Amino acid sequence: MRTTVGWRTEGGARALRRAPLERRDLRPDDIAVRVDYCGVCHTDLHAIHARDGAASPPLVPGHEFTGTVTETGRAVTHFSAGDPVAVGNIVDSCGECAMCRAGQENFCHAFPTLTYDGVDRHDGSTTLGGYSREYVLRDRFAYPLPAGLDPAAAAPLLCAGITVWEPLWALGVGPESRVAVAGLGGLGHLAVKMAVALGAETSVISRSPDKADDARRLGARALIVSTDPEQMAAARDRFDVVIDTISAPHDLGPYLQLVAMDGTLSHLGHLGPVTVETLDLLVGRKKLSSAGSGGRPATAAMLDFCAEHGVTADVELLPSAHVNEALDRLQHNDVRYRFVLDLADLD
Amino acid sequence: MRTTVGWRTEGGARALRRAPLERRDLRPDDIAVRVDYCGVCHTDLHAIHARDGAASPPLVPGHEFTGTVTETGRAVTHFSAGDPVAVGNIVDSCGECAMCRAGQENFCHAFPTLTYDGVDRHDGSTTLGGYSREYVLRDRFAYPLPAGLDPAAAAPLLCAGITVWEPLWALGVGPESRVAVAGLGGLGHLAVKMAVALGAETSVISRSPDKADDARRLGARALIVSTDPEQMAAARDRFDVVIDTISAPHDLGPYLQLVAMDGTLSHLGHLGPVTVETLDLLVGRKKLSSAGSGGRPATAAMLDFCAEHGVTADVELLPSAHVNEALDRLQHNDVRYRFVLDLADLD
Repeated sequence: MRTTVGWRTEGGARALRRAPLERRDLRPDDIAVRVDYCGVCHTDLHAIHARDGAASPPLVPGHEFTGTVTETGRAVTHFSAGDPVAVGNIVDSCGECAMCRAGQENFCHAFPTLTYDGVDRHDGSTTLGGYSREYVLRDRFAYPLPAGLDPAAAAPLLCAGITVWEPLWALGVGPESRVAVAGLGGLGHLAVKMAVALGAETSVISRSPDKADDARRLGARALIVSTDPEQMAAARDRFDVVIDTISAPHDLGPYLQLVAMDGTLSHLGHLGPVTVETLDLLVGRKKLSSAGSGGRPATAAMLDFCAEHGVTADVELLPSAHVNEALDRLQHNDVRYRFVLDLADLD
Repeated sequence: MRTTVGWRTEGGARALRRAPLERRDLRPDDIAVRVDYCGVCHTDLHAIHARDGAASPPLVPGHEFTGTVTETGRAVTHFSAGDPVAVGNIVDSCGECAMCRAGQENFCHAFPTLTYDGVDRHDGSTTLGGYSREYVLRDRFAYPLPAGLDPAAAAPLLCAGITVWEPLWALGVGPESRVAVAGLGGLGHLAVKMAVALGAETSVISRSPDKADDARRLGARALIVSTDPEQMAAARDRFDVVIDTISAPHDLGPYLQLVAMDGTLSHLGHLGPVTVETLDLLVGRKKLSSAGSGGRPATAAMLDFCAEHGVTADVELLPSAHVNEALDRLQHNDVRYRFVLDLADLD
């Protein structure tokens, strides 16, 4: 085994503590990556909170990171030591089911291997995430980081970015589209940047008007205040695509009202059951959809697109020793718009 | 006023009784229609049941009928006495909102005037439906009945037919599509016929295997028994479009499982709230949609398509005096697949 250092839970405590970690010896198709920057995702918070209880096994979060290849297995041909790479929330899949064959490994019928808290398909071990200085993974699930993308600001593209890219791309968003993004957080601000870069007329929907300047800076045409009935009524039936990134459970009815005839509300912000009134879909033949993460081809295409259009996350970069502060502030939505940990302090 | 005869509720009684009815004198753009055949729709049952209470105003159901023009207003140019026509569940709309301008009068922002139990936009009267020998309506909302369509079997096209046609058409169903129709009733059997006529590989999903012969006779390739977990598992991710016509509230999860990547479940059978697990949409980026009724252009196109492909409903034709028997049997799903009332017995 190889050893490295990372940030992990201990028993029922929510605070992460610095600890030595083991990584597997490289298999023929593995690469070892020095993790340079890792984004802090809402999922990390959920996973830590779900760990309450002293008997819980340790958890190392982190599933959107960039880094540098340090070593390659003997069968690896596409990467060499020194290559800049990016890794998202999936590090393996069955490779044989219809979804994997279609390049949608995120929907693998045998379930993809998650970057942390997943089960390795070969040795059955629990995967440990990117809040650590080294990660070892199958080469197919690392992506070359295109030149010109700042590696810290690019890290969040690998989870937040691909999660909003997939529906924008699958729904055919382009210069003819009118897009609204509900919720201006980690996912939302990237959805705005990508929709704008795709040429769409893009608006932001937010509870309060104080994000209007940010919305415009990100390229949005307007901010619609969701608590203002007049503004919401004026936007009725207006958007071909509404990307809903609101992370708390909420009534989808007011957002479906904004969807144009035959348009789609893509509900990305939280998992769990959602209830909609059939009439809210029926009138205007509207669609409710969801998405999450992405397949390998889409992830690679998204990175190329972002490099070409200069799209990265707005990040607050912190030494990884500040991880607990970042998690606490994230829980209170006190971030514009994504924390990224600089893992150099683990050396 | 004009007088005619029809079948209507009286106070809180559910049984319809024969009664004289008044129709308005023709406005310049009105036509008078002798109603020949009127389908019996689930909505009629709901409306009658909602009328419980002795103080309820009378109700004349019926919103899918065919008949013959008997008289035309002075501004009517497209119809003449003797023309065969068809009328659906909408008899007027504002004509000015974005939906009306887009030819989706069924989604009129000012609410379309329903064929029965609607409010006439000009005199404020309550509309009385097609279970009567004469109907008077604005010419724009009557459709020429194409030659070759049996007028009794065509009547259900005007509500059940257009309700399934709109999603099939809007979702682009054609020879490359795989379609499943859940529930083989009034809507479902027409959805099968139309999907087959559009060239789609079409299957039926039903709770019990006893409709397998009917499914094949209607042109379906197979019947999937929804209570058989093996059959449902084998059909996972198989269908680009699932048309869900089941009229009772039910769990959509098993039906979403059958939807292919980027495909759509169109939920048509009942109104009211529906709850879905976000993950059932997320995995495969599936969509939930709905539809109901149709606009004027789509209704006319649907009638032309049905005439060209010989699509009509499988009907059980009854003299209108049997209306209460038809409603009772419909409530117990004892019809294959649509009752149609012959209103000649009202003369």
